[in-house]
This record gives sequence, C-alpha cells and structure tokens, in this order.
Amino acid sequence: MSGDLEPLFNPGSVAVIGASATPGKIGNIVFASLKGGGREVFPVNPNETEILGSRCYASVADVPSEIDLALVALPSSLSVDSVRDCVDKGVKFIVVASSGFGEGGEDGRELEAQLVEAIAGRETRILGPNTMGLFVPGTGLDTLFVTPERSRRPKAGPVAVVSQSGAVAISFLEKAESAGMGVSACVCLGNRCDIDELELIDHFALDDGTKCIALYLESFSDGRAFVGRAGEVAREKPIVLLKTGRTTAGGRAARLHTGSLAVSSDAVVEGAIRQAGVARAADEEELVDISTAFSALGHVDGGRVCVVASAGGFGVIAADFVESDTERDLLSMAELSDSTRERLGELMPAFATPSNPVDLTAGVTDDTYDQVLDTLQGDPGVDVILMSLELQAPGVSTELIDIAARRATLDRTPIIATVSAKDQSATLRQVTGSGVVAYPTMRRSVRSIEALVERGRYLRRST
Amino acid sequence: MSGDLEPLFNPGSVAVIGASATPGKIGNIVFASLKGGGREVFPVNPNETEILGSRCYASVADVPSEIDLALVALPSSLSVDSVRDCVDKGVKFIVVASSGFGEGGEDGRELEAQLVEAIAGRETRILGPNTMGLFVPGTGLDTLFVTPERSRRPKAGPVAVVSQSGAVAISFLEKAESAGMGVSACVCLGNRCDIDELELIDHFALDDGTKCIALYLESFSDGRAFVGRAGEVAREKPIVLLKTGRTTAGGRAARLHTGSLAVSSDAVVEGAIRQAGVARAADEEELVDISTAFSALGHVDGGRVCVVASAGGFGVIAADFVESDTERDLLSMAELSDSTRERLGELMPAFATPSNPVDLTAGVTDDTYDQVLDTLQGDPGVDVILMSLELQAPGVSTELIDIAARRATLDRTPIIATVSAKDQSATLRQVTGSGVVAYPTMRRSVRSIEALVERGRYLRRST
Repeated sequence: MSGDLEPLFNPGSVAVIGASATPGKIGNIVFASLKGGGREVFPVNPNETEILGSRCYASVADVPSEIDLALVALPSSLSVDSVRDCVDKGVKFIVVASSGFGEGGEDGRELEAQLVEAIAGRETRILGPNTMGLFVPGTGLDTLFVTPERSRRPKAGPVAVVSQSGAVAISFLEKAESAGMGVSACVCLGNRCDIDELELIDHFALDDGTKCIALYLESFSDGRAFVGRAGEVAREKPIVLLKTGRTTAGGRAARLHTGSLAVSSDAVVEGAIRQAGVARAADEEELVDISTAFSALGHVDGGRVCVVASAGGFGVIAADFVESDTERDLLSMAELSDSTRERLGELMPAFATPSNPVDLTAGVTDDTYDQVLDTLQGDPGVDVILMSLELQAPGVSTELIDIAARRATLDRTPIIATVSAKDQSATLRQVTGSGVVAYPTMRRSVRSIEALVERGRYLRRST
Repeated sequence: MSGDLEPLFNPGSVAVIGASATPGKIGNIVFASLKGGGREVFPVNPNETEILGSRCYASVADVPSEIDLALVALPSSLSVDSVRDCVDKGVKFIVVASSGFGEGGEDGRELEAQLVEAIAGRETRILGPNTMGLFVPGTGLDTLFVTPERSRRPKAGPVAVVSQSGAVAISFLEKAESAGMGVSACVCLGNRCDIDELELIDHFALDDGTKCIALYLESFSDGRAFVGRAGEVAREKPIVLLKTGRTTAGGRAARLHTGSLAVSSDAVVEGAIRQAGVARAADEEELVDISTAFSALGHVDGGRVCVVASAGGFGVIAADFVESDTERDLLSMAELSDSTRERLGELMPAFATPSNPVDLTAGVTDDTYDQVLDTLQGDPGVDVILMSLELQAPGVSTELIDIAARRATLDRTPIIATVSAKDQSATLRQVTGSGVVAYPTMRRSVRSIEALVERGRYLRRST
C-alpha cells in the first residue's frame, strides 16, 4: 500500500466533485481556491454546465484528462458512487471531504466500509473521509475549505504537520505563520480509511524539505506500528506529537469526532512514545513551539542552562522553571566558570551580581548585552543560553535583535530567546524571522529547551 | 504604620530628586513623564536651574510647596541624604527608585538600614528602594521609567497589581492591555524597606475600584502575616499570587534581585496560601489570565463543564484538560440532561452527536450556535460553558462575537471562550472588550475555569 504519495502533494490535474456555483458552499469555496492555485482544475456536477468560467462535467468519467487528485465535496451518501467513478477512471488520489462516515453512527460506518471496498486492490488512494485535505505551500496546493481569506497560511518551510483534526491543523498553520515558521506540508487525516499517519511519517522521513514532523492524533491507526516506525524515523528526524483522547471524556469525544478508538491507557502511550524518541506536546501551542525549536536547532547537547536577563524578575521566573524540571532531571542552572564570572563582573554595573541567572539590570545597553552573550558562549559549562530579550529598558534598542540574531546563528552555544516588547507580536516575528528561536514567555522557552535537551539525550543513547 | 496611602496614589504635588536635563537618564525620563501627567511636578537638582521649562531647585527643602510624593532617582549613596531632606520637609511618600541597596551586598544593606532609620518615628513613608514606583490610570500618576513610549499601558479597570519585580509589572501591564483588561493601580514594591505587600493588600481590600488583587512575590515580607491577612481579604475579594523563588536556584536569584529571603519550602507556601483562599498562578501570563477571570466573574458555583465547539479537535483537547484535573478534582465534563440532548439533536446537523463536548462541526451557523448556547444555559446540570469561538468556519461570521457577548452577560450559566480567528490578537481584544472572558488556547481557558471553580468552593467552605 505504501506507494509514492508525490501526486497527492503536487497533482498535475485536479477534479472537484460536487463543485458548486453557489457562494458559501464547500464545493464552491474549494473549487475557487484550487482554481486560484494555478493548476488545471475540473469542476464536476451534473446540474451545472459552467462554474466560475470553467466548463463543468456531469461525471468525473467525462473529464477529458487524466486526474491526479479528485476532491469529493458531496453528502456522504452520494460520495461512494463518486469514489467508484474515480477508481474506474484511474484517479490517483481522492480527498473525501464529506462528513457522515465512521464518526456518524452505524450508517456512516457502513458507508465508510464501502469506500474501503471501492479502492480494494486498485491503485487509487483515499485521504479521509471527513477531512479538509491538504495544504502544500511549495506546490501551491490548498484544498482546505477554511481558506486564506479566513485563516493565515504560513510560508514554505521545514515542518510537516499531519493532523487528525482540521481545526487543529488550521490552528497550527495560524500559529506557525504568527511565529514566522514555515511548513513543508499540512495533511488532515480525517477518518483515515486508507492513508494514515504511518504512511505520511514514512513519506516525510524521506522528504528533504522536511526537518521536523508534527503530529496531532486522537488515536493511533496502529499503536505498535507507530512506536516502531516513529522510533526508526526519530533517529534521523525529530517527531513531535500532540496525542489527545488522554482521558475518558477526551477518548469518547475523539471517537465521536473522527470515529477513532483511543483504547490504550495514556501512561502506556506516554512510556512507549518517549522510548521511541518522540517528543510529546501538551497542546496545539506547544506542538508549534517544539516544532519550531526542532526545525531550527535539531537538539541541544546538554541541559546546563544559563539564563540572562535585564529584568531580574524574569531571571527568577526562568530559574524556577529550569529547576522545576525535577521529574526527568533534564535541565539545571549552569555553574559559571571563574573566568566567566570575572569577565561579567567587569562588564556589568557595580550593583549587578555575576551569577546565574545573570541579572544585567534595567541599566543594560546593547553593547553590554552583546559582550555578555559572547562571554557566556565561551563558557564550556554552559550548554544553552536562555536570553530574556526585553526591549523596554531605556538603554537598549532594536539593535539588540540583530545582536541576538548574530550570536544565535554562530556555530557556538545555542541561544533561545524570550521576547518582551511593546509590539509583542510584531517584535516576536521580527526576532524569529532573524533566525532566533523565540517565544513570548519563559515557560514556553524553557519547555522548548527541555524538548531539545531530551532529544540530545535520546540521540546519544540511540547511537 | 498602616496609614492612609491615598496621597501615594493621587499626590497633589510631586518632586523628582535627581531630575535631569539629559535625555535617556532615568531622572529625565521620569520627570518628563510625570510632568506630562498634568500635576505640579518640581525638579530637584543642585546642578541645574531649569529642566524642560520648569524651574529647578537645589534641594527639596527649597521647593515652595508641600510635597505629597517625592521620587528619588540618584545613585544609592546619594539617596539617603535626599530621603532625610524629604523627611525634614514633611514629604508624605518617597519612591526610592535607586538600585544598589539590600540587593547589592554589604554596603547596600547598610545604606538600606539608613533609609529605614531616616523615617523611623516620622510620618514619611518609603516605597522601594530599587523600584520603578507606580502607575495609577485613574489619577494619571505614572512613575515607571519604562514609559508608555516603550510599553503599553492598560486602561483603568478592576485589577490591582502589586509586584516585587518592575519587569514583571511591566509585562503584566502589557498583557493586561493586550487582553483588554484594565487595572486600578500597579505598584512595584522593590526591596520593600517600608511599604510592603501586606499594607497594599489592606489598601486594595478597601478600594471600591479594585475587584481583584494580583501579586508577584519572590518572598513574603512576613509569611505568617500574609497568610492571615490574605485569608481575611480573600473572603471578600479574590487574590491571585505568582510566587517565585520556588526552587533553590530561583530562591538564590530572588535574593540577589530584590535582597529578599525566600526561606520557606514551596510545599509549605503552597498549602498555606491555598488554605487562605489565594489562587496561585504558574507564571506571569497565568497571573493576568486568572485576574481577568476573577475580576469579570468572581467565581463559579460548580465544576461541571460543558464544552461546545465547531472544531471537533478543540472539543477533544478541552475535554482532556477538563478531565486531567484529577489532583484536586475540581472539574468534570457535565452530563447533559435528556431534554438538552433532545433539543441539541433538533438543532444540529444529522451527523453531529449531541454529547459533551458538543461538536457543532464546521457546518455550524451563527444562529445554530446561539440556540445551542441558549439550550446549554438552560441545563441545570451545567455549571460553566467553555465555548470554542472559531471564526474560520465558512458558516459563521463576526456576529458570533455579539452572540457570545449577549449570552455571556446574561444572568445565566457563565461562558468562557477560547478564541480562534485569522486576526487572533485583534479578535481576542474584540471578544474581551464585549464582556466575554476569553483566551487564545483551551489550556488557558480551562486553567481559568479551574481557578473560578476553586474560588467558588473556597467561598462555600468559608461561610
């Protein structure tokens, strides 16, 4: 079954079955959106002759061209016949957008079984049903019916996202865009009657444009196989997983949402995926945060953190988060060397005390901060620097962003920043855009450092 | 010692000792900022005759007016004499902005002892040293040297914030502004040589304009007294505390930052403050989040949560967070009544399953969402509704914000929203501005619901 998924991500020709001339209908939204993507798109609808200027066909069989990708936007009861037509025509991939399958009771489960039957032993593959499909910035493919008019799309970049929920995928894309992070592809699995996360993990494992795989799953299509495959892939490429359905209520909700059975106890899942080297995110925000860190930095080689701040309070908050990581004992506050302390003592105002966290006080200047970072990057006892990048202090300017970018992109001790500025969102984008992994709170920065350090430990263990 | 603090918050006349004509100096920034605030401000500096058009005085003794508030922006070594001059003149309050006191070694501790001595037995009170002072939107007083040009200030509103860190105070103000929440006052304690959190809690307890007290503390001035006072006040007015210095490294950092000793074990602190009815925030973001919830809703009477979403994935994520609260068992997913399920079955598309979380699917419309909220508010088995307010689905419009606002402000079951929209920040502000307590992620919404429910339980227990 694990064939080449390439035409799914970059189809030469597309048919929209259930394309509609009525604004607001899914079949209209998706057709317009795909047509705008610059590839050949054929509308299929027996009740129309033309849609948005394109000749409309009564059936996919009538389309005078081979079809790489068909999108079915019909009520579930009508979808099965369309899928059969597509199979007969030799369509390579079908995105079944329709709901009302396995997630919707006995009748729906029966319909979903018919979909599976329709492609049995044939070349045609199905994504879905109950899915928004996919978004691939590099090839301009976008089948998501929550269109760019209603939701921000990120640029092309290093993270592949695979989601069992369309809304979580949309949220991921928006948060990625807002953090300045790019994605290689976003695939919504839906009910996963054919293509599943395992096949996509295999695909993205071999995709040179993907440096990190982010997953949202409410259940595993095959838990044991997931642990095996993810464990192999994770040695080469980081995987981050948001696995919900953790609780009884969450599990029941997941079953109703995507018809999936989340049977394993969460403790079992937790142990197995950690063993496999997969990082686990607590929510959709953390999924983006950790993916950002992985795709930019890969991993960090040790857990000795030096915190540097001009805001003493943030130094204290950060130190607490670093040292609170007692359960897995990944992080500790670095012990600065004597020469580092001496150099810091020369650089810093008389009343500041050179220890870790390094409190530069509100009297700091851009130049002092630069020299302090240089000093800390030279200390072999520091594995990673957590920089509080506050632009509010009177003596600093936006030049501090360039300093952080220059220091962070050297082949020296990695720097993660927590940004605090008047125009928080814009400044954060500017900082991440300049190549620095950055977050708006210390909690989120420390969590990402923890994931990087855990990955470093995993890689040492597994070689 | 617990006199009337009113002139500190609304001084009739202000002197800035160490006012400077040199742009960029603290004495210049603060003088310009205070002068712009519309009250009488006298610059004091023996080396100048005029600053920004105001006649400058060599000493505070020379100022031809009574002074309610003096701000000292001089090196620590010069500050003590100035404070003595202020005491002799009968200045009511002095904000000692200077650093280099108790946080800066033996010499600094000696200087701080001299400050304490200077006001012993006199009427004059000191805020600080090592403090940015205070911001009071209602009276236009703003001594913070991180000025509005560099940092957003929130509007006047119901939350008083008291912080041992200037930077955390600034961060609180920015986050409050960005969440559309107003503050009654923001006070930076600094080294707390005289005025401390206890006196400020007493002050804000009696302040009609304050509905919630938010505290950032690295240590308690008197832990036992704090628990006693906070316990009394919390019966009437909610208190939220971010207490850092939790860990060894955090505690050491706190000592260096504000000269404070964080001696108690965190477990002791945790138990005592919970007993006292004080909510505990995990970081500066949660401090703002919980304050927002408390000031708008006070408390919630039970922990049975109904989650409603058009994005099934968010329903699953929310259900997991609600049910993960196993440690203190405050929250559970509400069991919907038969009549509620029946009514929902009528309102919702055929393939949606009426259970909790209520999954309205991407086919939802504004009108359906409105009727669903109405139905849920009528179910006596639901204590609080967590609404996923997603504006990306094709069938909803910004009208949904008005619907949420109307439903949330009725005297019926409280509604907390999680907002998801293309223009996330702007939409979130619009939603909170319309009177709905709202957050950008389910994790944060559920955490605030938990705090509201815990407060409800505390109030029932303590009556």
